[in-house]
Amino acid sequence: MKTKPLLLITNDDGITAPGIRTLIEIMSEIGDVVVVAPDKPQSAMGHAITINSTLFLNKTSKENASIVEYSCSGTPVDCVKLAVNEILKKKPDLCVSGINHGSNSSINIIYSGTMSAAVEAGIEGIPAIGFSLLDYNWNANFEESKTFIKKIVLEVLDKKLPKDVVLNVNIPNLKKEEIKGIKICRQAKAQWIEKFDKRTSPFGRDYYWLSGEFVNQDKGEDTDEWALKNGYISIVPVQFDLTAHHATQQLNTWDWNE
Amino acid sequence: MKTKPLLLITNDDGITAPGIRTLIEIMSEIGDVVVVAPDKPQSAMGHAITINSTLFLNKTSKENASIVEYSCSGTPVDCVKLAVNEILKKKPDLCVSGINHGSNSSINIIYSGTMSAAVEAGIEGIPAIGFSLLDYNWNANFEESKTFIKKIVLEVLDKKLPKDVVLNVNIPNLKKEEIKGIKICRQAKAQWIEKFDKRTSPFGRDYYWLSGEFVNQDKGEDTDEWALKNGYISIVPVQFDLTAHHATQQLNTWDWNE
Repeated sequence: MKTKPLLLITNDDGITAPGIRTLIEIMSEIGDVVVVAPDKPQSAMGHAITINSTLFLNKTSKENASIVEYSCSGTPVDCVKLAVNEILKKKPDLCVSGINHGSNSSINIIYSGTMSAAVEAGIEGIPAIGFSLLDYNWNANFEESKTFIKKIVLEVLDKKLPKDVVLNVNIPNLKKEEIKGIKICRQAKAQWIEKFDKRTSPFGRDYYWLSGEFVNQDKGEDTDEWALKNGYISIVPVQFDLTAHHATQQLNTWDWNE
Repeated sequence: MKTKPLLLITNDDGITAPGIRTLIEIMSEIGDVVVVAPDKPQSAMGHAITINSTLFLNKTSKENASIVEYSCSGTPVDCVKLAVNEILKKKPDLCVSGINHGSNSSINIIYSGTMSAAVEAGIEGIPAIGFSLLDYNWNANFEESKTFIKKIVLEVLDKKLPKDVVLNVNIPNLKKEEIKGIKICRQAKAQWIEKFDKRTSPFGRDYYWLSGEFVNQDKGEDTDEWALKNGYISIVPVQFDLTAHHATQQLNTWDWNE
């Protein structure tokens, strides 16, 4: 009998979030699960790590529980680093992050703690997938996405991801039967147009809330935004070599050394 | 007479860091300078943004000062967003971030607040450069890098960066005459091998300090690590489309919809 895969689970909404609880439920049908997730919401933390303060780990599962769980005082990326170096005895077969409450499609990937955790696993040579549901509510309905997530995880465990590639999976907030299928996509070229909400504190000091409007400038039909808008689950293969290789030649014609 | 370029300056070491003070000095010889930088160190914050708490801006320069300065309670990326949307009347001609105290070469770019600020500017359509000196000390010697930084900024203002490309500039910690020149490079494939330092608090609780060893697995002579080791300033063109386009074809052969 084949040994069960070792699955590391994390997220950025915190260990009590319904999204990660659903992911734990799905993953425990597939393999041995270890959860290391933030003890509080860490959304929009990007690839932040904790270097100027200490990190605490709390084992939150009972002795002999079938699923081992730790909460961590740090960021999603800290969770992955601690899991790999301090908790797990061997490299996990897969790291899954999420299910995020809200989209991490297009440029949102850059700000996302969920995806940064997956990317960190990738950097450490662990196959990784980030899952996000397009519903920001704490009580989002994750039920409808379950069979798709299981399908994607099994496919990745079976076929093996290309080297240095992690997957960014976004799931439209639709009923299971309304989801048209799964599409491999590219990251849409989109951005947030900020609108800061300026207020005054009871003590007379001005402060701001960051808010904004998401604008997709990309008309392509091969993007994650297009897929999601048209009822598909989008999968974007993601790399962490950020070099703009296409720009090298042009920059080499400049007068850098004169 | 041509109007002076409008230059936005930020960093992640905080507005009082010697690195940003040097950068302000260099930039004020080139154009009109506006500084919006964190009010405290924000190293390793990656592309974090502040969405679960409020943001404060403090104008720290005097009325009629030639250089306008604001400190901000948020992350480097928050600084760029606030500068562009709440402070500047027009889009800056260039955003420069740094000079970082310490390397942001190879994989360090992913964790770097300095580079995330530059990338954020890039996302907002502003040409951007992040500068880092390979010396982590607060009192690092930034003097030797001045002429090179000025040269690079003038070249970028003159030639214009390719669309959606920002520059990651790392400078070896050498005397000016020892620096061999400037090289366009790719991001080396390297990573940190973590070694957590586990300690016990006076109250008996275990905690960790994140630390580790930097390992460069990349033998290429076209990488930033190679250039820096051999006495060159490295410039890596950086993009924010993270799609691993080379993996799309392979992933499209998988059984996603069966």
